[in-house]
Amino acid sequence: MSKIIGNPLPNMPWQDKPEGNRDPMWRFDRNPIVTRHNLEGSRSVLNSAVIPYGDGYIGVFRVDSLEMIPGVHVGRSKDGINWEIEPEQIKFINEYGDMAKFSYGFDPRVCYIEDRYYVTWCNVINGEGSTVGAAYTYDFKTFHQLPNVYPLYNRNAVLFPKKINGRFALLNRPTSRGHCVGGNIYYSESPDMEFWGHHRMVIGTTSGWQGTKIGAGPIPIETDEGWLMFYHGVTQMASGMMYSIGAAILDKDEPWKALYRTKAMIMGPEAPYERSGDCNNVVFPCAALADSETGRIAIYYGAADTVLGLAFCEVNEIIDYIKKNSY
Amino acid sequence: MSKIIGNPLPNMPWQDKPEGNRDPMWRFDRNPIVTRHNLEGSRSVLNSAVIPYGDGYIGVFRVDSLEMIPGVHVGRSKDGINWEIEPEQIKFINEYGDMAKFSYGFDPRVCYIEDRYYVTWCNVINGEGSTVGAAYTYDFKTFHQLPNVYPLYNRNAVLFPKKINGRFALLNRPTSRGHCVGGNIYYSESPDMEFWGHHRMVIGTTSGWQGTKIGAGPIPIETDEGWLMFYHGVTQMASGMMYSIGAAILDKDEPWKALYRTKAMIMGPEAPYERSGDCNNVVFPCAALADSETGRIAIYYGAADTVLGLAFCEVNEIIDYIKKNSY
Amino acid sequence: MSKIIGNPLPNMPWQDKPEGNRDPMWRFDRNPIVTRHNLEGSRSVLNSAVIPYGDGYIGVFRVDSLEMIPGVHVGRSKDGINWEIEPEQIKFINEYGDMAKFSYGFDPRVCYIEDRYYVTWCNVINGEGSTVGAAYTYDFKTFHQLPNVYPLYNRNAVLFPKKINGRFALLNRPTSRGHCVGGNIYYSESPDMEFWGHHRMVIGTTSGWQGTKIGAGPIPIETDEGWLMFYHGVTQMASGMMYSIGAAILDKDEPWKALYRTKAMIMGPEAPYERSGDCNNVVFPCAALADSETGRIAIYYGAADTVLGLAFCEVNEIIDYIKKNSY
Amino acid sequence: MSKIIGNPLPNMPWQDKPEGNRDPMWRFDRNPIVTRHNLEGSRSVLNSAVIPYGDGYIGVFRVDSLEMIPGVHVGRSKDGINWEIEPEQIKFINEYGDMAKFSYGFDPRVCYIEDRYYVTWCNVINGEGSTVGAAYTYDFKTFHQLPNVYPLYNRNAVLFPKKINGRFALLNRPTSRGHCVGGNIYYSESPDMEFWGHHRMVIGTTSGWQGTKIGAGPIPIETDEGWLMFYHGVTQMASGMMYSIGAAILDKDEPWKALYRTKAMIMGPEAPYERSGDCNNVVFPCAALADSETGRIAIYYGAADTVLGLAFCEVNEIIDYIKKNSY
Amino acid sequence: MSKIIGNPLPNMPWQDKPEGNRDPMWRFDRNPIVTRHNLEGSRSVLNSAVIPYGDGYIGVFRVDSLEMIPGVHVGRSKDGINWEIEPEQIKFINEYGDMAKFSYGFDPRVCYIEDRYYVTWCNVINGEGSTVGAAYTYDFKTFHQLPNVYPLYNRNAVLFPKKINGRFALLNRPTSRGHCVGGNIYYSESPDMEFWGHHRMVIGTTSGWQGTKIGAGPIPIETDEGWLMFYHGVTQMASGMMYSIGAAILDKDEPWKALYRTKAMIMGPEAPYERSGDCNNVVFPCAALADSETGRIAIYYGAADTVLGLAFCEVNEIIDYIKKNSY
Amino acid sequence: MSKIIGNPLPNMPWQDKPEGNRDPMWRFDRNPIVTRHNLEGSRSVLNSAVIPYGDGYIGVFRVDSLEMIPGVHVGRSKDGINWEIEPEQIKFINEYGDMAKFSYGFDPRVCYIEDRYYVTWCNVINGEGSTVGAAYTYDFKTFHQLPNVYPLYNRNAVLFPKKINGRFALLNRPTSRGHCVGGNIYYSESPDMEFWGHHRMVIGTTSGWQGTKIGAGPIPIETDEGWLMFYHGVTQMASGMMYSIGAAILDKDEPWKALYRTKAMIMGPEAPYERSGDCNNVVFPCAALADSETGRIAIYYGAADTVLGLAFCEVNEIIDYIKKNSY
Repeated sequence: MSKIIGNPLPNMPWQDKPEGNRDPMWRFDRNPIVTRHNLEGSRSVLNSAVIPYGDGYIGVFRVDSLEMIPGVHVGRSKDGINWEIEPEQIKFINEYGDMAKFSYGFDPRVCYIEDRYYVTWCNVINGEGSTVGAAYTYDFKTFHQLPNVYPLYNRNAVLFPKKINGRFALLNRPTSRGHCVGGNIYYSESPDMEFWGHHRMVIGTTSGWQGTKIGAGPIPIETDEGWLMFYHGVTQMASGMMYSIGAAILDKDEPWKALYRTKAMIMGPEAPYERSGDCNNVVFPCAALADSETGRIAIYYGAADTVLGLAFCEVNEIIDYIKKNSY
Repeated sequence: MSKIIGNPLPNMPWQDKPEGNRDPMWRFDRNPIVTRHNLEGSRSVLNSAVIPYGDGYIGVFRVDSLEMIPGVHVGRSKDGINWEIEPEQIKFINEYGDMAKFSYGFDPRVCYIEDRYYVTWCNVINGEGSTVGAAYTYDFKTFHQLPNVYPLYNRNAVLFPKKINGRFALLNRPTSRGHCVGGNIYYSESPDMEFWGHHRMVIGTTSGWQGTKIGAGPIPIETDEGWLMFYHGVTQMASGMMYSIGAAILDKDEPWKALYRTKAMIMGPEAPYERSGDCNNVVFPCAALADSETGRIAIYYGAADTVLGLAFCEVNEIIDYIKKNSY
Repeated sequence: MSKIIGNPLPNMPWQDKPEGNRDPMWRFDRNPIVTRHNLEGSRSVLNSAVIPYGDGYIGVFRVDSLEMIPGVHVGRSKDGINWEIEPEQIKFINEYGDMAKFSYGFDPRVCYIEDRYYVTWCNVINGEGSTVGAAYTYDFKTFHQLPNVYPLYNRNAVLFPKKINGRFALLNRPTSRGHCVGGNIYYSESPDMEFWGHHRMVIGTTSGWQGTKIGAGPIPIETDEGWLMFYHGVTQMASGMMYSIGAAILDKDEPWKALYRTKAMIMGPEAPYERSGDCNNVVFPCAALADSETGRIAIYYGAADTVLGLAFCEVNEIIDYIKKNSY
Repeated sequence: MSKIIGNPLPNMPWQDKPEGNRDPMWRFDRNPIVTRHNLEGSRSVLNSAVIPYGDGYIGVFRVDSLEMIPGVHVGRSKDGINWEIEPEQIKFINEYGDMAKFSYGFDPRVCYIEDRYYVTWCNVINGEGSTVGAAYTYDFKTFHQLPNVYPLYNRNAVLFPKKINGRFALLNRPTSRGHCVGGNIYYSESPDMEFWGHHRMVIGTTSGWQGTKIGAGPIPIETDEGWLMFYHGVTQMASGMMYSIGAAILDKDEPWKALYRTKAMIMGPEAPYERSGDCNNVVFPCAALADSETGRIAIYYGAADTVLGLAFCEVNEIIDYIKKNSY
Repeated sequence: MSKIIGNPLPNMPWQDKPEGNRDPMWRFDRNPIVTRHNLEGSRSVLNSAVIPYGDGYIGVFRVDSLEMIPGVHVGRSKDGINWEIEPEQIKFINEYGDMAKFSYGFDPRVCYIEDRYYVTWCNVINGEGSTVGAAYTYDFKTFHQLPNVYPLYNRNAVLFPKKINGRFALLNRPTSRGHCVGGNIYYSESPDMEFWGHHRMVIGTTSGWQGTKIGAGPIPIETDEGWLMFYHGVTQMASGMMYSIGAAILDKDEPWKALYRTKAMIMGPEAPYERSGDCNNVVFPCAALADSETGRIAIYYGAADTVLGLAFCEVNEIIDYIKKNSY
Repeated sequence: MSKIIGNPLPNMPWQDKPEGNRDPMWRFDRNPIVTRHNLEGSRSVLNSAVIPYGDGYIGVFRVDSLEMIPGVHVGRSKDGINWEIEPEQIKFINEYGDMAKFSYGFDPRVCYIEDRYYVTWCNVINGEGSTVGAAYTYDFKTFHQLPNVYPLYNRNAVLFPKKINGRFALLNRPTSRGHCVGGNIYYSESPDMEFWGHHRMVIGTTSGWQGTKIGAGPIPIETDEGWLMFYHGVTQMASGMMYSIGAAILDKDEPWKALYRTKAMIMGPEAPYERSGDCNNVVFPCAALADSETGRIAIYYGAADTVLGLAFCEVNEIIDYIKKNSY
């Protein structure tokens, strides 16, 4: 029996698997849980990050305005399902000047390490390109921006929830179409969240649903089998790219080593709100809640680049599935 | 009168400017100085790095084999003009495993800092892409490879010859055609050559000869006016890309700030061995020698991706030219 | 209070904004109003132009046949909602020979100026490309084709409903992907509808929903604040292009000067018939009716390149919205 | 009155045309008939081939796994509507070694000629590309693979159900890597299913719905008017490629001569399961059943690259339609 | 015997055809006649326009600076061979504001009509694209800029030296790679050099040397056979585009009708200064001198985008050649 | 000591290797041996095939006309060095109608098998694409065209000079439209030169000089070590594609098995006529003569797509070189 290592989270959102359903992950039946109607003036609320906070939940949400410019907003919830999103974008305090240039950000992740909350995101610098942005906060009111992690061309950066071998550890995806290779998941380390090095490839694209590019999703979940990492895989269809969800188990001490990873997708676009929206055929996981008592896992995912959905799985079953469906 | 800060180098290669020539940089009249005939089994000897060593010179040369696979080789010379290139490629000792993956390298630079020689190069990892490789040596016999500087997609990395504000400083070019922005020159810092951060853009592409991409060339030369940085600029012509040479003056203490940079090229492809070769219309500067006594500067540059040439300029004249021809 | 300048149009299609709806534009609840079922043998009826005529309405409709070749047809309606479309395409009388080549046309606009109705459209010349076609009619039975407005590569041409400074005035979009710039809206003048000049850019692409290309929509509506111009904006998503609706206010006397223009979209694809069809995620405005008495505006728009929808707004509210949401 | 030449097939799936429907082909009202729920572990069941067998039907089905790697499976049905698909992929016996390389196959067709069943499919050889794969079976248990038909770059190969002028005859589409280049239908001959020659173009792309590429669909149906060939046509829309169905009549004795071919599509994507799926806007015909007694024809077609649908037409009406709508 | 209609030009540059040479056009043996050494600070002097003026010649030269930004300069010559180029670019007086936007210009042509000299050029507007720029001068000191001829995306515009049917007449090339059709030569008319219309295609690309794009060259030469038009043709080779010279005879009164046009090139890149330069394999004709007494024609042409060459032909022979080598 | 199997050819062109030259292949010092001056009205004479005939030599030459349309011509020579080329293109007698469509041909090879001479070439069908054309002749006066070998998209087809296992054997390269996709060497068989099958890949692209595409060159030479096959390899440089020469040894009885193949190129573009021409940096081998007595081999190759050169090697040395430089 696989186990989640961490705190219990008894009040997390949950719904048992519907009878007859044999998939390893199943949708919340009240999906989508967050839409543009949660915030006036928005075009879409999508790939967002959620974390327990106080006796409820807090999150950093990607909200695309009616201008269709992405932004990141704080949101709050008692139950993890009903959310209030602040109308103002997060204003990052930049003490690093040109080292922390920021035009706009999207696809945030939130991670608690030691004494504070770190936010990472795809950080767009107008006229240059996109890199990984990072910031920390103690209270989700004041956000201190850190220097950008790479000079340029990286996204889908996801921190581990504790230091690995004494260093901050970051999953990330160097990006370049110009090199005829797709986007793979890498691992970088830092002693201080300012300087980064020791880069290693973790897993790469293969074929089928994950043949074009892949990228890390929620903060990895610690289990007794290793780190449970959900990720998205992309394939190019004649009508555009399709985004699905897979998972891998990374070595506990050397998380740049993938022990298992799914050949088969765990969940692909199928519900109408996943099939049709501003970007059709997208399920994009960005955050997870996990209860060490019960092994329950809830995945927050963007659907069709338009709304936010919730899906569930159970740690023992999913780890079993990953192992059995691994390359 | 501008001055080079550093050691005198009385025996460096030199040739006075031909009469009537009004260009700020002029070619050696015995160019090309190194060709494939310097090393049996080679297709070309091109973009290479040279540095004073003992009472002569040593270098790290890019040699493309008859398979047209690039490699880096040590070369030695008494006079900086006649070179003997070792037939074996440099074998880097890798103590960092997957953090320092290496399939092959090209376009090396060599830099002496404090107590040793550092080599940086475009480091290709088969199946992944290219990043910045780094290594150090004390004797050009044993080379210790350091972890790769970025996860992926960076090249033309050039170290400063001393620490800036206590940190190693690296010019570099993040690379991606996929983002519709060309290649610009960035500045990154490291406390230890292992972890890198504090990334800033230095200068970007503009138009004309430097409208498509730009990249740092030789190790920057310290002068009383700031750091003298030669670089290459690329423009797309109907018959392919053309590579020319420009220069900039970077702030002494904050070298990520360019004080001046040439609107006009300093030297473009014109000699037959620059116009015609495996890649036509290329002059690609990779190394410089400088004599603080006389202000003489010698630039080593790859020509047409096929041979190595030598060009000269004088510090006072060139700095004056840069200032007068700056944006 | 902003006012429409022009005739009252008491019998125009209208529906009050649904309660609770806070959008500046709202859909007709019987959309789509025209589909392929309005004309046997058609695959789709889409981007079309409508204008008051007699005691009812007349229009020039884009009908794509089952061959999926676009064509333009006359349609008639009492109420502007229920339409009868003529099965035969419009046959333009060409008195200009090779100056008015025509293979097929699409995306028509209709404009009444002084004494007659002008039709403009995207005019495809097989083997050459597309330019702006123009014709006039007095009775929608005989159509006299004028010379093509440009040699080639222009579309989305929209006339102003009266001469500006004594000249015909035409919004248009020069087209070229080859130049790495998107499609922007220009303004051209003509003394006689035969010779054109005095070209000026009006507004260009910016970012988000209007970051890839933009093009004028219905005939501009004269108001006391200036010309009210609705337009479409296009953004490239991973699953294809998405077309939304924006608006601008152009200077009354110098309409090549945009006084305001929406940062935010006014209406994007959201209804099922806009999300899904032969070309997903398209709302494409082509015609407007306006009542100077009440300030009511009805916009005809193509949805998903498959059907025709109707949306409403009110002049005072929309102008207010444009001003508040302008760059 | 046109007639089908061949056996009666009284128990074939059939449904009369709904009243009021004037289209030449109409959908089964219980579509989709086969989905991923017909086989656990599948992502989609799509472009598949069906043929009478014993007192029921048998088929070769394209099943894409949850890895989204295509595979071909045998399926069985009593009524042609309810199918049981074998969980194991077909294992081809390869007696031809490198002449019959096979990584995976998709879009199968099945054809009975003289004494056995031939299967042809798009045969992907990893690292090389795709060509036409071929095999035969007597019992749908043992499949003998034949040498690949072309060195590379061909797909949509469809055999005629009897030899033409004493030779096996194969419709096919020479192609290129990727989705982006055009493709026309060719005719090749073979004395023995091992060596192929006498290649001729049959019909090419034209414009509109069949402007980008075309490919043969079911095994051609013999009629007294010639061979009735259904095919798919593809057009590039701003939101991706759209696949529709057309038909042609080929000369009885010289089937490389098309007597008629539809300018208009016969059926395009319109039902929700055709509009939306892993690849939106696809109807892709792969098999047909025909009853010589009644003239009834049932077409099996893949919908949205996700499920299998069934559509009907009547030989006399469809041939009449083709003739009237021909170029 | 064909005849040039116009003034005698006894002092024009000339050199008899070398013995043994059977080509219809032959090179000046002192080519290149103008290089970057004619103007300090220039990278290249290329596609330029020349016209008789006083007892000598005057011209508008394309000079690319060391920044590789094109510019247009006045040049003067006694003999048409030795040229002095003004170091300052032409400053156009713009009385038309945004109708005559100008960032920089290149590939000028000069034409005398009625009472003044008109200059047309490829007019680049930064951030928009390129269109046709136009200006007039009486003295080559003051240049009055006219409104740009098209909104955007046109180049290689060449005026006829007299009004045709009472209107200014302009050869031009609408430009768009986005439409998958190459660049063809069009004809536009204007009553006043401000408003343009009556656009017609003259000749298009065919195959071989003129298969990719074509563009008009010098001002057409009036002959008793019609207008003699030299033009360039472009073909895509594996090592880039190749530019060659062809010719056509246009109808005297309806010059949009080509009576003859060369299937074969008249002159392709062959001399070293044509083969090798900033853009290899380019001969680009821009101006012509013609002597009605002797039938001598001198063509000025840019070579390899780097220098200016001179080639000769004789009216009778060239017209004969065109007729015999026409499609 | 390796030996050529076949007839002696004492009068073949030959020149001993220059002293000091250590390359396995060396150029004729009177290169280029054939240029456009060998045939009036030609732009270039390039990739051509030569074979012993009577007491001299005969060949099929690729001649590109001044229209730059390729054509194939017969040429004759006493010594294999001085050639007379017939001004008329070969007229193929087509007894196969649409099975042997032919618009124009290029890059011919000539092979004697049993009783006649076969010509194969890249066969362009206008509006379709290119495939392999084939014909035979007894006397080089009458050429009987055979059916095209593949439906479409194949080139560089080269016959073996005798049947292999009783069948005609053809090296070929499946390809795609355009220049930009890779291409490997395949092997196909035919019992009768009409029907083809049994396709197998022989060797593929690897990296460096042969990383983009490869294609067979002259008719393979039989030796006691196996078939000696010269081929061209292509790599993409920033200034265009570069074509070099390599070689392989194929198994005598199963020539689809490569025993050895050169990692290093044998000869790359270096002479001025190879570096510069209509397509820079091309050496393209198309024919070979071999003398079994002395082991001498002469290679005819196209240079820079403009002229024909001759290079030499010696069977023993070249086979030794291939073995030592093989993968």
